[in-house]
Amino acid sequence: MIKAQIIIIGDELVDGTVQDINILPLAQELKILGVHVRNVVIARDQREPLYQTVERAWQESDLVITTGGLGPTKDDITKEIIGRLSGSHQVESEEAKAIVISHYERIDRPWDPAKNNYHLIPEKVKAIYNPVGLAPGLCLKQNSKLLLAAPGVPRELKAMYQTEFKPIIQEQFASQLTTPTSFVVRTMGIPEEKIFYDLCPDLWSELEKFGRVSSLPQVSGVDIRVSLSKPHLATELKQLFSNHPLTPYIWQFGDTPLPEYLLQKAREKKITLSCAESCTGGLVSSLFTDVSGCSDVFLGSAVTYSNQAKEQILDVSAATLSEHGAVSEPVVRQMADGARRIYGSDFALSFSGVAGPSGGSREKPVGTVAIGLSTPRETVSYLHHFKGDRILLKERFAKRGLFYLLEAIERAPACSFEKE
Amino acid sequence: MIKAQIIIIGDELVDGTVQDINILPLAQELKILGVHVRNVVIARDQREPLYQTVERAWQESDLVITTGGLGPTKDDITKEIIGRLSGSHQVESEEAKAIVISHYERIDRPWDPAKNNYHLIPEKVKAIYNPVGLAPGLCLKQNSKLLLAAPGVPRELKAMYQTEFKPIIQEQFASQLTTPTSFVVRTMGIPEEKIFYDLCPDLWSELEKFGRVSSLPQVSGVDIRVSLSKPHLATELKQLFSNHPLTPYIWQFGDTPLPEYLLQKAREKKITLSCAESCTGGLVSSLFTDVSGCSDVFLGSAVTYSNQAKEQILDVSAATLSEHGAVSEPVVRQMADGARRIYGSDFALSFSGVAGPSGGSREKPVGTVAIGLSTPRETVSYLHHFKGDRILLKERFAKRGLFYLLEAIERAPACSFEKE
Repeated sequence: MIKAQIIIIGDELVDGTVQDINILPLAQELKILGVHVRNVVIARDQREPLYQTVERAWQESDLVITTGGLGPTKDDITKEIIGRLSGSHQVESEEAKAIVISHYERIDRPWDPAKNNYHLIPEKVKAIYNPVGLAPGLCLKQNSKLLLAAPGVPRELKAMYQTEFKPIIQEQFASQLTTPTSFVVRTMGIPEEKIFYDLCPDLWSELEKFGRVSSLPQVSGVDIRVSLSKPHLATELKQLFSNHPLTPYIWQFGDTPLPEYLLQKAREKKITLSCAESCTGGLVSSLFTDVSGCSDVFLGSAVTYSNQAKEQILDVSAATLSEHGAVSEPVVRQMADGARRIYGSDFALSFSGVAGPSGGSREKPVGTVAIGLSTPRETVSYLHHFKGDRILLKERFAKRGLFYLLEAIERAPACSFEKE
Repeated sequence: MIKAQIIIIGDELVDGTVQDINILPLAQELKILGVHVRNVVIARDQREPLYQTVERAWQESDLVITTGGLGPTKDDITKEIIGRLSGSHQVESEEAKAIVISHYERIDRPWDPAKNNYHLIPEKVKAIYNPVGLAPGLCLKQNSKLLLAAPGVPRELKAMYQTEFKPIIQEQFASQLTTPTSFVVRTMGIPEEKIFYDLCPDLWSELEKFGRVSSLPQVSGVDIRVSLSKPHLATELKQLFSNHPLTPYIWQFGDTPLPEYLLQKAREKKITLSCAESCTGGLVSSLFTDVSGCSDVFLGSAVTYSNQAKEQILDVSAATLSEHGAVSEPVVRQMADGARRIYGSDFALSFSGVAGPSGGSREKPVGTVAIGLSTPRETVSYLHHFKGDRILLKERFAKRGLFYLLEAIERAPACSFEKE
């Protein structure tokens, strides 16, 4: 298998200033292509250590991909590093010039060579067209090895990978690329230790017969992943779980994110959805609307942070609020009914809780959440206690609610809510 | 300065299955402590390559922190790797046993040594208390170097760092820790190249007199960061920008995220806020509610994806919708007025746009957004075109709207909206 290494360049990614969002999509693309990523290094914009990192990766791997350090400012040194690696000096490249001019034409501005050195490229390195930005990428081929350098801006990396890097990698390594098949079992409501020690102690070795096994606890439950030694084993493996102690905890065989999976299931049954959110503050709605084409299923969400908004917008009764408090099952039932009514949706999900760090009490500590679910048949509610900081709690509340909603959708008879 | 290396362990983080969220907070904490992180390696759960990575970091740095691979399943090999590094075998440790028993007591379950090997620890390594999880951490001290291993679960890493690792690092390196001061200038509405080549070509060298300079283009604008050689230079540096060509583009000197900064400014003037969101789908609301204590300023958001919801909940006129379309300035003005009315807020911000990838037209292509802003004095609207995929567009729409809101808050006279 082709071995690759990813090098993410930028002080801001090492010193805690910026969250990296390039590694995940790049690793996903390489996996689909059949390239094995050995590791990822996040390196600073410092000449000597960066050169050593790039040089080491170049020795150890067939393919090296770098991101970052191609911009116009003085802290951008990737071109210099790759020049040194290739043993060539930067020269004016006509090819690079043509690419840069076309980049500037796209944004209707003239290119001024005094303002950046985009047209200077190490002699043995090829300039790569940037479909959405101004700085060209770089490509170095030596001794059947390949190094590709992209800008660090996520949008530019994504575009350059798709239209430029991908065909170069496919051409260079052609027959050596083999896409692995993996089989994923996603569970919820049971901890990792309980799965592998209490419920089914032989599971790990049973699964190892099919390929390399890994287990991954996530906010939404434990994901068990098997990299199949042969693709056709997937059917046999699925068979194993048709009647297994773990079966009741499995919510999906596959990799679809929960909000998208839930929208698919709702769409299949023609069920429309809405939310009323207090403590989750729009997160559930934002998760749904991250999914393209959600609008046929998801109608909207009323984010009601104050009691006044709960009363006025969702028609929650002032008496219920004062008797039970905003974080209570009676309130979330009224919130869910209210959302279902104002949005005219089939199902509605509601949340009211204490995300903290302040606002907790002895009776309702930080981490308490009431979740309501309103359907044409019934309105139900649940109360949970979770642990974590504010951001994690919002996510845990959201995921727990989405699972209740998924269960309700799966229980609903097919097409029972079809409109005339 | 103490040199550190972070090693994030887990196949799922290298092969594109899971987004890392440990590096950023860990790097932030180490920076505050005055530790210089040289680089970060994300490594697979594979014995030989992982051992080499850990061994190399151990040679090169004063401090190594690993996360992941301490769990109960067979793919968890960090303990074995650190045992090998320390030159000691795993033995039953009474100290580790006591820690593990206390972990299980916390979750009201008896610990069963048959179900995991948490109590087996390499002889030369110390077990570390886990304040929120079950697996102990590890600590190895040798030749004035320090290696600390934490579980990969973000919540457990965070807790273990705060209560256990931080005091160990402070004790071990005491006087060698020096916290750097950095000065941040955050701009919006001007590209990096224009700043450093057109508007103020001498800026970079002017700033270099104060310390190491870096420039970082973000979705919300370009951030320029100077690591000050001496902390007292901050005042002088701020002076430089009091009357500078860049001044009109600067929205903050400092590191506060935009939603939190905006809430602070609104709070100072006692202005309450609400939103009406179509294309941003709850993202703006979720950004506000990520900030603890937002509820005195932010009252809520009506996520209205469908025209019907815009009419019924926000009282947008059906005639305006059919005449101008949902993505239009007249509609967002009515949405903003509607949100201000139903939430009873002082200001309201609204969004309607095409986040794509479908739904675009020649007149209103993907990336078009109308933004409305309603205040007691006036209701205004703006129309923009952005590029990017769905997730990025949602973020660009949100950031652009937040800047309009921030400008309006900054223009508003102090306390003009104080209630009786």
